[in-house]
Amino acid sequence: MPACYSENIEMLEDLLGYRFNNKELLLDALTHKSYHHEKPDKAPRYNERLEFLGDSVLGLVIAESLFCYNILLTEADMSKMKSYLVKESMLFEIASRLSLGKYLRLGRGEESTGGRQKKSILSDAVEALFGAIFLDSDYKTAKSVILRLFSDKIDRIISKKEGHDFKSELQEKTQSLFGVLPEYKIVKQEGEEHKKIFTVEVYINGQLYGGGTGKSKKDAQMNAAKEAIKKLIDE
Amino acid sequence: MPACYSENIEMLEDLLGYRFNNKELLLDALTHKSYHHEKPDKAPRYNERLEFLGDSVLGLVIAESLFCYNILLTEADMSKMKSYLVKESMLFEIASRLSLGKYLRLGRGEESTGGRQKKSILSDAVEALFGAIFLDSDYKTAKSVILRLFSDKIDRIISKKEGHDFKSELQEKTQSLFGVLPEYKIVKQEGEEHKKIFTVEVYINGQLYGGGTGKSKKDAQMNAAKEAIKKLIDE
Repeated sequence: MPACYSENIEMLEDLLGYRFNNKELLLDALTHKSYHHEKPDKAPRYNERLEFLGDSVLGLVIAESLFCYNILLTEADMSKMKSYLVKESMLFEIASRLSLGKYLRLGRGEESTGGRQKKSILSDAVEALFGAIFLDSDYKTAKSVILRLFSDKIDRIISKKEGHDFKSELQEKTQSLFGVLPEYKIVKQEGEEHKKIFTVEVYINGQLYGGGTGKSKKDAQMNAAKEAIKKLIDE
Repeated sequence: MPACYSENIEMLEDLLGYRFNNKELLLDALTHKSYHHEKPDKAPRYNERLEFLGDSVLGLVIAESLFCYNILLTEADMSKMKSYLVKESMLFEIASRLSLGKYLRLGRGEESTGGRQKKSILSDAVEALFGAIFLDSDYKTAKSVILRLFSDKIDRIISKKEGHDFKSELQEKTQSLFGVLPEYKIVKQEGEEHKKIFTVEVYINGQLYGGGTGKSKKDAQMNAAKEAIKKLIDE
């Protein structure tokens, strides 16, 4: 283990829920280039290349989890959510939760100007850690580490979206565009009592604009409304 | 197998070097939203969500391969190369190689305005295919498919970068900045004849600016020059 491995770095591994096979990779992820420039013998590498890799690892993990979470999320929904989830302030929150600042290897200049608290340095180091875990293990393992850290954020953003009232949104849109209200028709009820699946269609001016299914009439109407909104936007 | 699976889609799978377990995923990847809007019964989904996912799959595969290809590539090098490799015209080239146009499911409007040849539609479908393969298998499998399609492009861009003459670049820089030439010193020669490794340092005004190793003096000097350029830029 490298000599400069003096901070109790196992605590960081505990918080990450991951033990590195190659501790040098972990160290690289925690090394800012200011430290490398000052002590190239102690730190032959720094974390920028790992940050580049980690950014893409994080990108795929978030994209996959949004994709699989709810098939009703459109590409536009997912793009917006992804940008929100991977932004600097989110990564900074995770860095704070990991107390990452105290593990960083910084040059004297950065140290004296509060580098350990800098959002950009800390969020870059979080991405570098994800890159290092990916290299040290595989995609699946990196995904499980990242999802553990992001699950509350993903749940929050999706439930906010799911909590959105598409029926009201559609009603506003049809009133302003056509001066009419949307009409919902139940076209199918399948399955036994308590396990019913409803299929609903929504019409605007007698024209079919969307369909949806759900475990309740309201769910099915919401999904139909969502599809109709998409169609109105696409038109 | 879906009824609309009439084109000999196995030829596409051969060119991809991948057989889908779930053929519906392949079909979704080939379905443009114009077709879905026209025939929602035949095509309950279209390829935009898969494209969103595939974009991130491709991003990680390219990032990983650049990262591992050459440790001398800086984050800035890799970012530039990645943007170049994933741009629309590259994906369009791959779509052409796969004759992807003939497999697309398009609505009549797109069909009549040459949608099968449109760069944006074809490059989106390539990304959607990558997303579908990833979902149908795993990251490792998707990576091998993507790398097979991209290997010539990655080799080309890296050899172009490697072909860059860092010694000349450094010489120009030191002359314009300090009015002197860089000086190279061989500081180590290791290994048997024909397997020698040279270590070279480069000095500007007597000050060490970089070091590099290589199988020839010239390679070692190139790597030292590259490091010195980085240092000059960082200063």
